[in-house]
Amino acid sequence: MSVEILSKQLCHGGAVSTVAHKSTSLGLDAKFMLFRPAEALRGDKTPVLFLLAGLTCTHETFLQKSTIIAEAAACGLTLVAPDTSPRGAGVEGENDTYDLGTAAGFYLDATRQPWASHYRMGSYVADELPELIRTRFGQEGSAFGIMGHSMGGHGALVHGLRNPSLWQSVSALAPIVHPSVVPWGTRAFKAYLGEDRESWAAWDAVSLIASGRRHPNEILIDQGTADQFLAQELRPDLIENAAAKAGQPLTLRYHAGYDHSYWFIQSVISDHVAHHARLLGARS
Amino acid sequence: MSVEILSKQLCHGGAVSTVAHKSTSLGLDAKFMLFRPAEALRGDKTPVLFLLAGLTCTHETFLQKSTIIAEAAACGLTLVAPDTSPRGAGVEGENDTYDLGTAAGFYLDATRQPWASHYRMGSYVADELPELIRTRFGQEGSAFGIMGHSMGGHGALVHGLRNPSLWQSVSALAPIVHPSVVPWGTRAFKAYLGEDRESWAAWDAVSLIASGRRHPNEILIDQGTADQFLAQELRPDLIENAAAKAGQPLTLRYHAGYDHSYWFIQSVISDHVAHHARLLGARS
Repeated sequence: MSVEILSKQLCHGGAVSTVAHKSTSLGLDAKFMLFRPAEALRGDKTPVLFLLAGLTCTHETFLQKSTIIAEAAACGLTLVAPDTSPRGAGVEGENDTYDLGTAAGFYLDATRQPWASHYRMGSYVADELPELIRTRFGQEGSAFGIMGHSMGGHGALVHGLRNPSLWQSVSALAPIVHPSVVPWGTRAFKAYLGEDRESWAAWDAVSLIASGRRHPNEILIDQGTADQFLAQELRPDLIENAAAKAGQPLTLRYHAGYDHSYWFIQSVISDHVAHHARLLGARS
Repeated sequence: MSVEILSKQLCHGGAVSTVAHKSTSLGLDAKFMLFRPAEALRGDKTPVLFLLAGLTCTHETFLQKSTIIAEAAACGLTLVAPDTSPRGAGVEGENDTYDLGTAAGFYLDATRQPWASHYRMGSYVADELPELIRTRFGQEGSAFGIMGHSMGGHGALVHGLRNPSLWQSVSALAPIVHPSVVPWGTRAFKAYLGEDRESWAAWDAVSLIASGRRHPNEILIDQGTADQFLAQELRPDLIENAAAKAGQPLTLRYHAGYDHSYWFIQSVISDHVAHHARLLGARS
C-alpha cells in the first residue's frame, strides 16, 4: 500500500497535506486531504473527523472553503477529506453530468456495471481510508467521527448508521436524507445499484432508520431555509420524522435565509466541530 | 454609476455579495466582493476593511480562502475585496504571464501605453471604490482600513502610506515591500510606468518611507519563513529597516515553517482583524 504525501503546509500550528495512494477499493489512484493538528505531528493520537463533500466537489473543497481548520486545531482533531468519487475510472459518460459519475460517487459501492468495477466509495470510506489513517498516520485506536455536506451529508448519515461502532459521532449540513425518493438519488441509485429498489435501502439514511438501524449518539443536522435544493432534493423533514418515530436521537436546526453554499457551512461549522469534539473525547 | 448586486448569500449573520459596476477609473466593467455584517444590513455604519489579493487571484479569492468572515462578523466590519487587475482591457499579451497584466495590476496607475488606458487599479482602490462603498452602501463617514497579501500586501502598504488620512489602519501578509528592486516588481513597473525609475518610488512602500511618507499608526506585517518567495520577491527586512530608520511604527513577525499560501493567511488572520478593529474603533 504505497502512500505519498504530495504536500505539507503549516496551518494553525498543524499541517495540511494532499496525500496520494493506490486505492485497493477503487482500483485506481486516489487523493485525499488531511489536516493533522500539532499533537498529531508530534506523534500523538487524536480523534479523527472525516469530511465528505458534495456534488461537483473534490478532495480539496471541504478544507479550503469550510473554515474548519481553526476550530479543529483548537480541539486537536485530525481531519480527513476524501474525494467525492473515483477519478479516471473510464466509464463512458462519467464526466457528462454533474450528478452522476465523476464527483458524484454517493459514497456507496456500485453493484451494476459499468460502474461496479471502480465506483466503490462505500468501501473506500468505511474500510480502506480509516485503516490507512490508523496505520500510516499513527491513529490506531483513535475515535472516528464523520460529517458531510449535501451528497456528503447523505454519506455521513448512511455510514454513521451502517457502522455506528466505527463512527462515534455523526453530523450533516444540508444533507440528502432519503436519496431513494429524490431526483439526484434515484438517478444515481438506478445507475449504480440497478432498478431493484430494495437494494437501495442499504444506502439511504431514512430507509436505514426505518429498517431498525440506530446510532447511539445524537445526530446533528443543520439546514438553511433558502437552500435552493431543500424542497426537491434534501427534505430533512423526512429524517426528522423517521428518527422521531424510531427513537433515534437527532437534532435538526433550520437557519432562516441561509442557502446551500459554503457560506452557510462556515456559519455553523463551529457547532459541528464542538459536537464531534464532545462525542470523540477531544478537548473542547 | 450603475451598481448591480449579482448575489447575496447569508454568512455569519451578515451577507456576502458579488457586486458588478461600470468602473470609471478602469473604463471597464468590474466586479468586487463585499461582506456586510448584520449591522450594515440593518443600515448602520460600520468600519470598512479593504482586502487586496495577490498575483493570479480574483475578487473572490480573499473572502473564499482567508477565513476572515467569522472574525469580521464578530467585530462588525464591512469587507471589500476588489479584483487584482482590470479584466478584458484587451492589451496584447495581458493574459500571457501570471505576473503582468490580468490578475497582476499591482494596485497602481499605469502611465505607459498600452497599459495606461485601463490599468488604473491605483485610482480604483484609492478613490472610486471607497466612494462607491460610502455612497452606495451607507458608509459615509466610516473609518477605512486596508490589508493585503503578497502583491496585495504591496498594495495595502503603498496605499496606506500614500493616503494615511483615508486608510486609518494598514497591515500586510507576506507583502512585496520594495517592488523597485525585485523581479516581479521591476518587470511590472517597467511595463506599467516605463524605464524612469524615479516614477516608481510613488508606488513602492520602502521608497515612500525613505522619501518621508509616514503612517501615524503601527503597520502590522506577518511573514512565513518557509515562503518560497521570501528571499527573492518579498524581503520584508527591507521595510523593517526603512521603518526603523524613519521612525515609522511597524511590527514584522516571522512565523517558522509557514509558506506563502492561504493556509498561512488563515493562521494569522485573527490578529489582523484585531489590529484593524482596534484602530478603526470596531468592537473587539
